[in-house]
Amino acid sequence: MNNLLVAQSGGPTAAINATLSGVLHGVRASGKIDQVFGAKNGIEGVIKDHLINLNDILMDTGALDLLTCTPSSILGTCRYKLKECHQDEETYHKIITTLKKYEIKFFIYIGGNDSMDTVHKLSEYCIENNHDIKIMGAPKTIDNDLHMTDHSPGFGSAAKYIASTIKELACDIGAYDIPAVTIVEIMGRNAGWLTASAVLSRMNGGAGVDLIYLCEKEFDYKRFIHDVREKLSQKSGILIAVSEGIRDGSGAYVSDTISSGTVDIFGHKYIAGAARALEQLVRTEIGCKVRSIELSLMQRSASHLASETDIMEAMMLGQKALACALDGETGKMSVIKRISNKPYRVEFDSVPVHQVANKEKTVPIDWITPDDHDVTSDMIDYLLPLIQGEINLKYQNGIPRQFSL
Amino acid sequence: MNNLLVAQSGGPTAAINATLSGVLHGVRASGKIDQVFGAKNGIEGVIKDHLINLNDILMDTGALDLLTCTPSSILGTCRYKLKECHQDEETYHKIITTLKKYEIKFFIYIGGNDSMDTVHKLSEYCIENNHDIKIMGAPKTIDNDLHMTDHSPGFGSAAKYIASTIKELACDIGAYDIPAVTIVEIMGRNAGWLTASAVLSRMNGGAGVDLIYLCEKEFDYKRFIHDVREKLSQKSGILIAVSEGIRDGSGAYVSDTISSGTVDIFGHKYIAGAARALEQLVRTEIGCKVRSIELSLMQRSASHLASETDIMEAMMLGQKALACALDGETGKMSVIKRISNKPYRVEFDSVPVHQVANKEKTVPIDWITPDDHDVTSDMIDYLLPLIQGEINLKYQNGIPRQFSL
Repeated sequence: MNNLLVAQSGGPTAAINATLSGVLHGVRASGKIDQVFGAKNGIEGVIKDHLINLNDILMDTGALDLLTCTPSSILGTCRYKLKECHQDEETYHKIITTLKKYEIKFFIYIGGNDSMDTVHKLSEYCIENNHDIKIMGAPKTIDNDLHMTDHSPGFGSAAKYIASTIKELACDIGAYDIPAVTIVEIMGRNAGWLTASAVLSRMNGGAGVDLIYLCEKEFDYKRFIHDVREKLSQKSGILIAVSEGIRDGSGAYVSDTISSGTVDIFGHKYIAGAARALEQLVRTEIGCKVRSIELSLMQRSASHLASETDIMEAMMLGQKALACALDGETGKMSVIKRISNKPYRVEFDSVPVHQVANKEKTVPIDWITPDDHDVTSDMIDYLLPLIQGEINLKYQNGIPRQFSL
Repeated sequence: MNNLLVAQSGGPTAAINATLSGVLHGVRASGKIDQVFGAKNGIEGVIKDHLINLNDILMDTGALDLLTCTPSSILGTCRYKLKECHQDEETYHKIITTLKKYEIKFFIYIGGNDSMDTVHKLSEYCIENNHDIKIMGAPKTIDNDLHMTDHSPGFGSAAKYIASTIKELACDIGAYDIPAVTIVEIMGRNAGWLTASAVLSRMNGGAGVDLIYLCEKEFDYKRFIHDVREKLSQKSGILIAVSEGIRDGSGAYVSDTISSGTVDIFGHKYIAGAARALEQLVRTEIGCKVRSIELSLMQRSASHLASETDIMEAMMLGQKALACALDGETGKMSVIKRISNKPYRVEFDSVPVHQVANKEKTVPIDWITPDDHDVTSDMIDYLLPLIQGEINLKYQNGIPRQFSL
C-alpha cells in the first residue's frame, strides 16, 4: 500500500487548512496514493496512534473547497518538541510503529520551525534505520519567520487582516477631533513582519497608521513619547502599531514594565502586553485620551479576510510537498521563491529542512526607517503582493461557512 | 432656498455613513433640495459654523456607493450634550445663526439617544421661536439600546462581526487539546444586545461560544467559576462572551476588581476590562491556560463584515427621515417596525423623539436562560435576520476601498 499521512502543527493560521487541501488535491491529481490519513494534534497523534482516514473528504470537492477557506487546523495542533533519538528511543519507536501499522510511505508535516525540526529528525532516523518513508515539510506561520522561503503561508492573510483592520480603526479614530492615541499590539515576539504590514493601511491614501515600532529595533521610551507628541501636534487622533516583542535598551520586554510591577486584588502578578504598558506610559507622560488594542487571535484566524494569493500559495506548497515526496525526496520543505515583484511571480521549490529548522528570519534592519518608527518602500514592495485578492467565501446564516470533521 | 443640513454624532459605526448616503439618495430622488451641507463633528460644527457643501458627492454615484460602505462618521462626530435653552441661550442663538446663514430648512441628525435629546430640544426651540426649520433624527447605535425602533443601524453589522469572529476564534481554540479558557469582552455598558449576538456563532453547528454573560443579570463570581469548571469537564477549549458592563451583586463593575486594586510601576491606577478581571480570576481559581480578548473598536468599525440588511436599513432610515422632514414633520426620529421574522419583513415609520431621548432599551430578562449563562431561542429569532447578507465591498491594493472627504 502507498499510504500518506498528513498532520498540522504549531499556532493555527487562516491558511494551514489550505495547505492540507493542497495535499489532498495533489493526491487526487496524482492517483498514486491508496489511503490518506490525518494525525490528530500533529506528531502527538502519531505517537498516540490517533489517526483519521481522510479518503471521504478527498472525494468531496465541495468539502475540499470549504476546507480551503476554514481557519485554524482541522486536524488539531500541538507544540511538541521531539528529542534527539538517543535521548528518547521509545517515542521514535512509537512513531515508526504507527507509520508501519498504517503502511505509511509518505508523511507531510505542515508547520513552523519547530515542526521542521521534527521533519529533520524523523527523516534522518528513517534513513539511518532503513525505513522507506519519505517525510516532507510544508511551511506555515503567520510570523513569516521561516528561512529559505520568500514568505510563509498564513502570513499574507494575517497581513491583509491587519492592514484592513488598521485602516478601519483609522477611520474610527479620525471621526473625533480631540487629542487621542490608539496603540495596536500585533503578534511577533522576535520578528516584526506582521507589525510592518500595518503600513499597508496607508496604500489607498487617507487615514492609516502613524507610527510603527518593530521588535527588531531597541525601543526607546523617551523617543517614543517624543514621536507621539510630534504627531499629536500635527493631527488629533494618532494610531500606533507595535510588535508584542518590543524590548528596551536593557533587553527587557516593554510588556514586563507592567507585569513586573503590578498585582491584582488577589495579590497575583498581572500580565499585560506591550500596548497596555505604552498606554499607561502615554497616560502618565502626555495625559491625553489613550487606548490600547490587541489584535490577539483574530489576526491569525480571520479567514473571512484571507488573502487569495496566500491561500493559493498555501495550496501549492501542499501540492509541492506531496510531489517531492512522490519523487523520492525526504527531509525537505517546500518553499516559495520570488521571481519578481511587478508583476508578482513566484516559483515553488524544496530545500533541505535542516536549513530551516530552529532558525528565525527577522526583518532586515535597513527596511526600518532611520527614525525607527516606520518601514521603507522596500518593505512595502515586499508586502503588497502578499495581500492581493479575496477568497470566494460561502456564508450561511449570515456567518462564514466552515468545514468541520 | 430649500437647503438641508445633515450631521453625525456619537460613537462611530459601520452603518452611520450608509444613513448619510440614504439621506443624499433621498435628496437626489426628491428634487426638492437646493443645497446640502454637512456639519463637521455633529452639533459642534453647527455651533462653530463648520459646514461643508456636499452637493458634489450628491452627484457622484460612485462616491455615494463608496460612502455607503465606509465605516465611522465621515463628517466627524462629537459627544455634545445640549443644555436646556434657558440655561444656555447663547448656544441656541449660535445654532440658529448658522442655520439661517446657510438658509437651512431641514436638519437631519444621525445618532443615538444623546443626539435625539438634541433633536428634541432644538425642534422645540424652533417651534417656540417660530423658526421654520424641520428637524428629524435618524437612529444609530451599535448598542441597539434605542427605544421605539425594533433595532438600530450599526447593530446588525457589529453583531455579524461578533458572530463571525467568535466562530473563527472557536475554530482556533478548538485546534488545541489542552484545557484552556478564552474570555471575549464585547461592548455594552448597560445593554447586552451585542454580547448576546455571540450566540449566532453556533448557527452552522460545530464550535461556537460556550457561555454568555449579559450585563442585564447580576454577575456571580462563584457561579461563573462553577460554570467554567463544568464546561471544562466536557471539552478542552472553552469560549466565553461577556458584556463589558457586567456587575456583581453589590452593583460594582467586574472590571473594577482589577482597576481598583492595581497600580502600575508609575503608581498609577491600572485600568483593565471585565474580561481581564475574569482572566485573572480563572487563573487564580482554576489555574488552566486562560486568555482574554477585547473586540474593542473593531466591532463597531468592521465594514468589511457589514450586514447587507443593516446597511440597507440604515440607508432607508436616512431616506425616511428626509421624507418626513419634507412632509413637514419635526422633532421625530425614523424607526424600524418589524412585521415578521419568517420571512423577515419591516416597515419604516417615525415617532416623536422625546419617546427615545435619554432612555436605554435593555435585553428582556426572559430572553436570558434561567441558568444566567446563555440566551433563548426568542433572542436568536430576533437577532438572526439582522446579520443576513454581505455588501459588495470594493478592494484596492488588497484592502477595502473607503470614502474620504
